[in-house]
Amino acid sequence: MAHIKLTEGLPGIRALFDFRPETAEPLCQLADVLLHQPSPLSQGERELIATYVSSLNDCRYCQTAHGAIAAHHLNGNENVVLQVKHDFKSAPISDKLKALLVIAGNVQRGGKQVTATDVENAKREGASDLEIHDTVLIAAAFCMYNRYVDGLGTWAPGDLESYKPRAAIVAEGGYNRIPSDIREHARGSAG
Amino acid sequence: MAHIKLTEGLPGIRALFDFRPETAEPLCQLADVLLHQPSPLSQGERELIATYVSSLNDCRYCQTAHGAIAAHHLNGNENVVLQVKHDFKSAPISDKLKALLVIAGNVQRGGKQVTATDVENAKREGASDLEIHDTVLIAAAFCMYNRYVDGLGTWAPGDLESYKPRAAIVAEGGYNRIPSDIREHARGSAG
Repeated sequence: MAHIKLTEGLPGIRALFDFRPETAEPLCQLADVLLHQPSPLSQGERELIATYVSSLNDCRYCQTAHGAIAAHHLNGNENVVLQVKHDFKSAPISDKLKALLVIAGNVQRGGKQVTATDVENAKREGASDLEIHDTVLIAAAFCMYNRYVDGLGTWAPGDLESYKPRAAIVAEGGYNRIPSDIREHARGSAG
Repeated sequence: MAHIKLTEGLPGIRALFDFRPETAEPLCQLADVLLHQPSPLSQGERELIATYVSSLNDCRYCQTAHGAIAAHHLNGNENVVLQVKHDFKSAPISDKLKALLVIAGNVQRGGKQVTATDVENAKREGASDLEIHDTVLIAAAFCMYNRYVDGLGTWAPGDLESYKPRAAIVAEGGYNRIPSDIREHARGSAG
């Protein structure tokens, strides 16, 4: 049960966006810039970083929701998502993304855990400063989103299938529309 | 030295706001809602939560910058800031804030570390759902800001005095003006 009174039926962070619309706006804008708007890293790669960090933080809602969005971007390939979570070094992804996932994993443990060698390795695999910046900020941001979702004890649906319809909507339309979608949902429930 | 090429002379997260203005906007908006805009917790109390979590994450820039902002709100009382960082249970703050700092410290370790007992204790001391929500999100957000600042190896001035003029500006004017201030600074340096 959640630690505070939330609207029933809204899973994970969606219930928190409904509870506090003032923070929902910048939280969704940040996710949209980092995961959806144009960037040298593909949307699928960025969602894999988010999913990996969420799995390290053991956040069921975020790793399942973003894993489903990643799989949508990767033509439904759920195996790649599972491989990245369980052993990314043997996953069928680029060496550059592997080097960036090393950085993301170190950010998850703490900012000072990122070493100059980690960054040199990523640059050697072709990562730009912008890609390194965005990897660190995606990983840091999911250390926030994961703690927000679990720190308030929100509810996460158990079955992967139930995440897929919303994953497709977010994968195609981005994160900025989520706050207004939730307001519509709330009006619909009240009407 | 920072892990990516940043404008010289800008400390901590300010150099990162300058590097990536697209993420600076939502990051500053989030800080403004959580720390500056009206809330049942005072601005000083919220800055103390931010400072405490930043000290747990050993982030020198954030704990010094937000500690200076907290002290500004607390009529220059730097001792309270130091006491909260070193042993908040003996600090001259309310029992409600102490109960909220217990929650914040558990969020810092991981979202699932927050227990129903922590939340009950805070409610018994008079904390509302909104105050508990904001405490969790402030703590979670500083687990992001701290990792962002240290994960990219930014520079932090060593002397507390140099933080005070900017702390006064932020304490009075909030966080939303920071991105445009940094753009002005960049134009000034170039001109």
